[in-house]
Amino acid sequence: MSSTKDIDALIEMMAKLPGLGPRSARRAVLHMIKKRALLMIPLSDTLQNVAATARECLNCGNIGTSDVCDICTSHKRANGEICVVEDVADLWAMERSGVFKGRYHVLGGTLSALDAVGPEELRIPKLMTRIADEHITEVILALNATIDGQTTAHYIAGELETRGVAVTSLAQGVPIGGELDYLDDGTISAALKARKAL
Amino acid sequence: MSSTKDIDALIEMMAKLPGLGPRSARRAVLHMIKKRALLMIPLSDTLQNVAATARECLNCGNIGTSDVCDICTSHKRANGEICVVEDVADLWAMERSGVFKGRYHVLGGTLSALDAVGPEELRIPKLMTRIADEHITEVILALNATIDGQTTAHYIAGELETRGVAVTSLAQGVPIGGELDYLDDGTISAALKARKAL
Ligand SMILES: [Zn+2]
Ligand SMILES: [Zn+2]
Repeated sequence: MSSTKDIDALIEMMAKLPGLGPRSARRAVLHMIKKRALLMIPLSDTLQNVAATARECLNCGNIGTSDVCDICTSHKRANGEICVVEDVADLWAMERSGVFKGRYHVLGGTLSALDAVGPEELRIPKLMTRIADEHITEVILALNATIDGQTTAHYIAGELETRGVAVTSLAQGVPIGGELDYLDDGTISAALKARKAL
Repeated sequence: MSSTKDIDALIEMMAKLPGLGPRSARRAVLHMIKKRALLMIPLSDTLQNVAATARECLNCGNIGTSDVCDICTSHKRANGEICVVEDVADLWAMERSGVFKGRYHVLGGTLSALDAVGPEELRIPKLMTRIADEHITEVILALNATIDGQTTAHYIAGELETRGVAVTSLAQGVPIGGELDYLDDGTISAALKARKAL
């Protein structure tokens, strides 16, 4: 309990963030009040800036500050390879490993009969367009090793069968049930190097 | 990696919060970008408001929005009891339990020879002043059951010996719903020593 509505509201909002519960939200708020000038005010300002400028890349779904992201506009990344990931956190994880030199395509989730998520909800039509437009020769499916992730990988592989592109997937090093964003950079790097044709 | 400095800066700041690491900071930032209007902008605004208004109560060290907090100014809480806690999070925890009806005194830490924290750093002189000014009859030491917490409790109890106030501390024992097999030896030992006739 705090004596002010704003502090209570702040704790409630912080507790909505993934990874934080009520207790850690309270700790975080007290910590920020102690670090007002060094942390709380800069954080508020930066949140405002990011809220004003961050947007999804219209091409790949990455988060950036322009309509088309830096990776999509970089000519150095136009090597004919597209790495398909479930979400932006996975793209960031791939980038941290520093091994992949092509471009990305962020699906925004996985196919799921249960949640009624079909290809149209997943930026899959856009992937098909890009494969033609960007002269793609290899599609690397870097989806999570979950049932939904693998179902989605097989669906995309099926759609690409007649398109004349190689379809590969991360293989070695990704543990069963593992999610990319939890893996260390070395594991991702090994999995990419040992990728196999589907 | 993100393509913009602000997003990177935001992740870095979030990762400084207690309970959040780099990975959960990245997740939190992506979550906020998705919930821009509902979470990110209100959070930024509320951080700004709290940064502008939150202050430590000059009397007890609680966090509020006025020089003296609501608990210290409430006549209903002037029952002659002061509960001494290490930090504001502990005060909030006590308030959530709803059992204590007196006022608080937040030390702001514990005595620590290692970290050179003495009584002057801990709002202990102010506690002595309040005991006289507020006609305190009982001081309840609700300090953590750590070595530093208990050292601090013993120091304060010593200082209060000649002041004519009762000095008590929270009972140590088995928490409600606690299973013996999950408790550390110290807790079991304390609970045995403090055993009561049924
Ligand atoms: Zn892009
Ligand atoms: Zn107060």
